[in-house]
Amino acid sequence: MNTFDFGIVGLGVMGRNLLLNMADQKFAVAGLDLDTEKASSLQQEANAEHTIKATTDVEEFVQLIKQPRAIMLLVPAGKPVDSAIQSLLPYLDKGDIIIDGGNTYFTDTDRRFTELSALGIHFFGMGISGGEKGARFGPSLMPGGDKQAYERLRPIFEAISAKVDGEPCVEYLGNGAAGNYVKMAHNGIEYGIMQLISEVYDLMKRGYNLDDNTIQTIFNDWNGTELQSYLIEITGQILKKNDTDGQKLINVISDWAKSKGTGKWTSQNAMDLQVPLPTIDAAVTMRDMSKNKPQRIEAATKLVWNTEDTDVNIVEAVASLKDALYFSILITYAQGLALLTTASEVYNYDLNLETVTKIWRGGCIIRAVVLEDFRKAYAKNQDLKNILLDDTIAAQLNSSQAGIRTTVQFAVQKGLPVAGLMNALAYFDAYRSQNLPTNLIQAQRDYFGAHTYERTDATGIFHTEWND
Amino acid sequence: MNTFDFGIVGLGVMGRNLLLNMADQKFAVAGLDLDTEKASSLQQEANAEHTIKATTDVEEFVQLIKQPRAIMLLVPAGKPVDSAIQSLLPYLDKGDIIIDGGNTYFTDTDRRFTELSALGIHFFGMGISGGEKGARFGPSLMPGGDKQAYERLRPIFEAISAKVDGEPCVEYLGNGAAGNYVKMAHNGIEYGIMQLISEVYDLMKRGYNLDDNTIQTIFNDWNGTELQSYLIEITGQILKKNDTDGQKLINVISDWAKSKGTGKWTSQNAMDLQVPLPTIDAAVTMRDMSKNKPQRIEAATKLVWNTEDTDVNIVEAVASLKDALYFSILITYAQGLALLTTASEVYNYDLNLETVTKIWRGGCIIRAVVLEDFRKAYAKNQDLKNILLDDTIAAQLNSSQAGIRTTVQFAVQKGLPVAGLMNALAYFDAYRSQNLPTNLIQAQRDYFGAHTYERTDATGIFHTEWND
Repeated sequence: MNTFDFGIVGLGVMGRNLLLNMADQKFAVAGLDLDTEKASSLQQEANAEHTIKATTDVEEFVQLIKQPRAIMLLVPAGKPVDSAIQSLLPYLDKGDIIIDGGNTYFTDTDRRFTELSALGIHFFGMGISGGEKGARFGPSLMPGGDKQAYERLRPIFEAISAKVDGEPCVEYLGNGAAGNYVKMAHNGIEYGIMQLISEVYDLMKRGYNLDDNTIQTIFNDWNGTELQSYLIEITGQILKKNDTDGQKLINVISDWAKSKGTGKWTSQNAMDLQVPLPTIDAAVTMRDMSKNKPQRIEAATKLVWNTEDTDVNIVEAVASLKDALYFSILITYAQGLALLTTASEVYNYDLNLETVTKIWRGGCIIRAVVLEDFRKAYAKNQDLKNILLDDTIAAQLNSSQAGIRTTVQFAVQKGLPVAGLMNALAYFDAYRSQNLPTNLIQAQRDYFGAHTYERTDATGIFHTEWND
Repeated sequence: MNTFDFGIVGLGVMGRNLLLNMADQKFAVAGLDLDTEKASSLQQEANAEHTIKATTDVEEFVQLIKQPRAIMLLVPAGKPVDSAIQSLLPYLDKGDIIIDGGNTYFTDTDRRFTELSALGIHFFGMGISGGEKGARFGPSLMPGGDKQAYERLRPIFEAISAKVDGEPCVEYLGNGAAGNYVKMAHNGIEYGIMQLISEVYDLMKRGYNLDDNTIQTIFNDWNGTELQSYLIEITGQILKKNDTDGQKLINVISDWAKSKGTGKWTSQNAMDLQVPLPTIDAAVTMRDMSKNKPQRIEAATKLVWNTEDTDVNIVEAVASLKDALYFSILITYAQGLALLTTASEVYNYDLNLETVTKIWRGGCIIRAVVLEDFRKAYAKNQDLKNILLDDTIAAQLNSSQAGIRTTVQFAVQKGLPVAGLMNALAYFDAYRSQNLPTNLIQAQRDYFGAHTYERTDATGIFHTEWND
């Protein structure tokens, strides 16, 4: 009774692996899952060094844990989180801590914080990234909210997190639901990068007709360059994987892309905050497009573009693809980080983006060598509004933009969809436009709706009788 | 007492003009506005033929109207609608009708319908488009919800609406908040088309260096072609308008584009329904981008693309621009109509898209000759999932696609942002892709999160241990 350091509710992939990770670090960890099978299978995974106890009984679970208790929820976002909290409450004491480690929408965390504070229970949301393996051997952890509560658990989280140059990939991020919000933006960036990689893959395959092994080799090689990152690395490994018949597994995987909604939340909330992140929007929308299979099959016969094959220098084409991917990945991070900058102001998170980019360098799905460049940019200028304005990043974009221009032009000519690449380039070209043609939109709004406009040569609000 | 046919609450631009429109049609109309100035100025606008009474007193207003009463609200969406309803309720009787004619978010209409039904008050939402002039001389009206209540008011609405070939641009659209939803999608399409026109304008100006008068002439001419539409027409008129100093007014209008949120709602809800409408997303996001002026000024000096001027055949270039605009406008309508198709299923609106496209042909901001093609497409096939699958529309897209490809390639080379055009083309090329590279995204999700995948050659759910 009351001897375990930590409790985890929900022993699915993430919960089980985090629990084992903590147990590796010599913490005694209790696990709760209402599914008997999950509870017992965890017990079997434990080794002799581990102090683990899994149960299906809520009361037993709570009583196993040292007071003040620390209990982390790893259950699906939404109602299951509320249910888990309700089931725990009768057995908790004031001063106990509940941590929501799921992909919870940030406003839910705000609500639960208020509800639980009234009961004397500390509560905070913590984003966790790293997938199955990351959870097991070192995730990136994004805690926010109740700082005092976090500090009590810091030794555990620092022990289990990924490390980069000896620094743990966990740090207190900010007020309120900052942890969940940062994780949401992380996932939005993840959606964007995955979409971009899939487009570049498509251009190699359908555009340049490269064979599977060549494509695999290219991604594998790219992981030794400035593109080095977890998502490029696993792409190389995926493209290497053979099916049972010796053929490439990738070629028999259905193109119906699923999602759990975190990318969508990012886009929807960015629209509320009026922060443009078109590459992430494109990633969300192209997953939706992938679901339209029957319509796409019919459309393929009706909407036809006859393109001519032209002579292509493959070495140059692949170099352009690489620049296009690097350029567009930088832009995607820029969009997600710009969202965090605005969200921090609007929601009073008091985020430090040097810290965010620092803890994203390891453990998480969007870890990449380029994160160190971003960290440095924020270290140099804490008030940087957008990483595109950092001289080092700007130079990288200026030098890789020819590649994305060539690549988009090629895709357009071939009739291949590259919504992610296009939106990265459009973002760049719009962002560097001192004047946009949106003056015409303001004029139209004033014409049909008397919505008024501002002028460049005078202050105030103006309306014109356009037909006089 | 109790002699007026209709009451209007809110005497701003829309309310005042609708009231005068009804008065022109010999209806006796009472108006309510808490602002004394608005109430009295309306009274002054009335002519000898009008039976109008404007007041600032709620009780007097309600008692002016014939029972069962019909009262339309033209107040800003959100809390003002609830306030207006609450102020009216003490004076209303069972069987009275309240119509919300504002840009109300559809879930608010659902809630108010339920609340007012319990009190015996009929309620429905009706989208109104046409802007200031449309409201005055013939708008497009999009009623939904309480059909019985609508039928009682049909003569009034048919009298005041725009007419196309003698047919009124108003018809009952469907259940629940169908009227508000259709208006929201209308506005989403409006955002998309306005963005596209602004991009084509930008290409003429910054891309091909055409002078203002030439650009004006081109838009003016285009309104005599298949592009004929209200938004093209007013663009020509806007570009003609001189400022007091004799210079073009457009050139001193600030590029900070405002919005009232209906485009954003369209994009956000489409993401909930998993319907891709990337051109509308781009329109929303580019208005947001326009607000970043100080950052854009700084970025313009740091992010630089040195493009070479190439010899251009302007006649061919303008022909391509025209095809690009026509193509992308078709795609934008397709996206909005596809949203309505899905929304009708999800929310049980029971929409008939032939009716929707029919009443959009006149009065509204997105009226265009092409709407008749859409109406015909739905008349031919009520179950058409996407107008891109209609043979006539498909043929128009197939023949105009070369123009948008050339145009996008030019913009990319010049470094000019054309997010709307790009997203229209990406939508087209993705929609006609029998296979998308999203199989790689599914593989990545399974790799890092054990999220499983489906196969093209077998049914079921699969997971791979990618590192084995």
